[in-house]
Amino acid sequence: MTTFELLERAKSAKGAMATASTEAKNRALLAMAETLEARSASILSANALDLEAARGHISDVMLDRLALSDSRIAAMAEGIRQVAALPDPVGQVLRTVNRPNGLHIEKTAVPMGVIAIIYESRPNVTSDAAALALKAGSACVLRGGKEAHRSAAAIVEALRLGLERSGLPQDALQLVEDTTRQSANELMTAVGLVDLLIPRGGAGLIRSCVENATVNVIETGTGICHVYVDAQADLDMALSIVENAKTSRPSVCNAEEVLLVHRDAAAEFLPRLRERIPQVELRLCRRAAAIIPGTPAGDMDFDTEFLDYILAVKVVDSLEEAIAHIAAHSTGHSDAIVTRNRQAAQTFTTLVDSAAVYWNASTRFTDGGEFGLGCEMGISTQKLHARGPMGLEELCTYKYIITGDGQIR
Amino acid sequence: MTTFELLERAKSAKGAMATASTEAKNRALLAMAETLEARSASILSANALDLEAARGHISDVMLDRLALSDSRIAAMAEGIRQVAALPDPVGQVLRTVNRPNGLHIEKTAVPMGVIAIIYESRPNVTSDAAALALKAGSACVLRGGKEAHRSAAAIVEALRLGLERSGLPQDALQLVEDTTRQSANELMTAVGLVDLLIPRGGAGLIRSCVENATVNVIETGTGICHVYVDAQADLDMALSIVENAKTSRPSVCNAEEVLLVHRDAAAEFLPRLRERIPQVELRLCRRAAAIIPGTPAGDMDFDTEFLDYILAVKVVDSLEEAIAHIAAHSTGHSDAIVTRNRQAAQTFTTLVDSAAVYWNASTRFTDGGEFGLGCEMGISTQKLHARGPMGLEELCTYKYIITGDGQIR
Repeated sequence: MTTFELLERAKSAKGAMATASTEAKNRALLAMAETLEARSASILSANALDLEAARGHISDVMLDRLALSDSRIAAMAEGIRQVAALPDPVGQVLRTVNRPNGLHIEKTAVPMGVIAIIYESRPNVTSDAAALALKAGSACVLRGGKEAHRSAAAIVEALRLGLERSGLPQDALQLVEDTTRQSANELMTAVGLVDLLIPRGGAGLIRSCVENATVNVIETGTGICHVYVDAQADLDMALSIVENAKTSRPSVCNAEEVLLVHRDAAAEFLPRLRERIPQVELRLCRRAAAIIPGTPAGDMDFDTEFLDYILAVKVVDSLEEAIAHIAAHSTGHSDAIVTRNRQAAQTFTTLVDSAAVYWNASTRFTDGGEFGLGCEMGISTQKLHARGPMGLEELCTYKYIITGDGQIR
Repeated sequence: MTTFELLERAKSAKGAMATASTEAKNRALLAMAETLEARSASILSANALDLEAARGHISDVMLDRLALSDSRIAAMAEGIRQVAALPDPVGQVLRTVNRPNGLHIEKTAVPMGVIAIIYESRPNVTSDAAALALKAGSACVLRGGKEAHRSAAAIVEALRLGLERSGLPQDALQLVEDTTRQSANELMTAVGLVDLLIPRGGAGLIRSCVENATVNVIETGTGICHVYVDAQADLDMALSIVENAKTSRPSVCNAEEVLLVHRDAAAEFLPRLRERIPQVELRLCRRAAAIIPGTPAGDMDFDTEFLDYILAVKVVDSLEEAIAHIAAHSTGHSDAIVTRNRQAAQTFTTLVDSAAVYWNASTRFTDGGEFGLGCEMGISTQKLHARGPMGLEELCTYKYIITGDGQIR
């Protein structure tokens, strides 16, 4: 099937999804979890073929991300059941206005329609993204990476079986067959067919979507996150936060990439930090390098999402310099200040223009679950529509429903 | 000044605008209203030059839109004062979450940063747009049409004087000097400088922005609005609504362009309609033409925003056909059903995928003032971020501000 045909099918399922009751959607999700587990043997065989084809072509880390097992499939099914348990965002009345002329206006959350997701090689994204989009009342079009295509196809087949058993249209869930750049471009420009496009993956994919898409896109995920240790920081707390933000999971977007230290704290803080995280390569500005040993920072080190045990370190003269540095180099994801000074914290949280701004906590908390949203489709780093973790509500739009008895203007 | 330099200046004013108190912003708006009126003589001379240059090149309707007078300037000043009186959206806490680990999370409304507006020849948009963007805590970059440039420059000069007198940075308000296509393209691609671009104008301008912009855009305004007269409509009410939606102000985006009539109502309704709005040219589908005289509808008549005393008319067999026609031809602005049947109304309001869906009221109410927002920057026809009339809240984004006492994950 061409991508265009498949989008038409997804579009044809919009109405059924938009009118499906919460119970019908939850029943479908539970059936999908069941068929996913029931089909685990065929999913694992498909995955074995993907792994065999990929071996030698992608890194061991990527191979591990690609690999499925019974327990990973069980975890995927559990993820779907958790989405079923979340409150339904569709139909929520966000605001009610009763006008003097008798018009009754309800601003109501409604589904987007067709949500397309372009992602890379993690098979679990297939079920996560499908569950979230469907629960939000939208049809879902998935376009995964080449390496995981057989796995994704087996997963989608299982999920569609669950949809069908529950009485919702199979066509509400589609997997794009073509995994070349062409299908990505088709999704980006399918005006009238794709209501929202979410790229989940590397910086190159996301940039390409933002630059080329004519459909609505939400930019996700790139995180050059900063921790600023203020002159008045509790240095024990700062050490613990920097250690956690940098080393607890360096490969994720909310990990710290840059440390800024006020000059008054640097002489004491940097030697303690060097000792605390010996596994991390520090790339140091000249002033930091005068205090501790490390690699001299190069031109790009303050603009790189390392996703690794590397931390760029800069000594600054003031809170204002820290804020200006962040304005120039942050991707607007998550940035933190460690300080005892409430005024400094307030200035920082007001002026740092990022999705999540922390005072005395690790940047690692930027996550749908940690924010109490229960789930997450990704973390938006743009300012339009959703910012930060996107849960079910952020996957919806709204409309105004106006009831009258013949009002004219 | 180049567009780039001017955007840099606007960006440099972001911090001052974001931290300005409600009182400071309101004081600035009142000062702007005052300087606008104080400078009316020079604004009128500039406007006279614009009018002289435009005469013979643009239609009389456009000339009238371009023309200023003392009373129009007074109305612009009054509009600014009304914006000053509206509640400040910035800093509103939209949601508070207290997590078990002690983190305190506030989802807080914050300014966009730099809002750019591309518009055409109505000078009053200059002051309206500036007042709204500034009140929403953003710097504002205006790029008007060539015909109105001298007027806009005089207006912006007056407004900047008001800003300066009140202590806010003049640089928060910029007028692009270049009125060629190049400056529009520069704004559309000024990633990192423009946080939100709003095109206000004709369909061509809007399409060009949506297709070419790499910055965030909100699509506004094109309205192919439908009224569907159901089999169970109160025909007196339907006549009054269609008359109002079509003829009260045909040149605006919320005016009706297409009438759909259920076949059971057509034989009685259409002759009465023909009599009720003799000034309107009816473009009729074959079945309607069998009932009343009129122009046969051509291929494009159901896809045209006439903005004139023209109405396309189609007889449909069912509610479902009406909904399917709207899905295929509506621009997603405003669509209405007239019916006594609650079930039909509910199906219509659920399945019609437009910003505003009416039951028994005229489409003409889609407007920030009529919806109780107090003002409006335009009417979004897209699903991302804002849908329908955009007031001050819709000109803001939000961020998460997280306060901890050393939490790590």
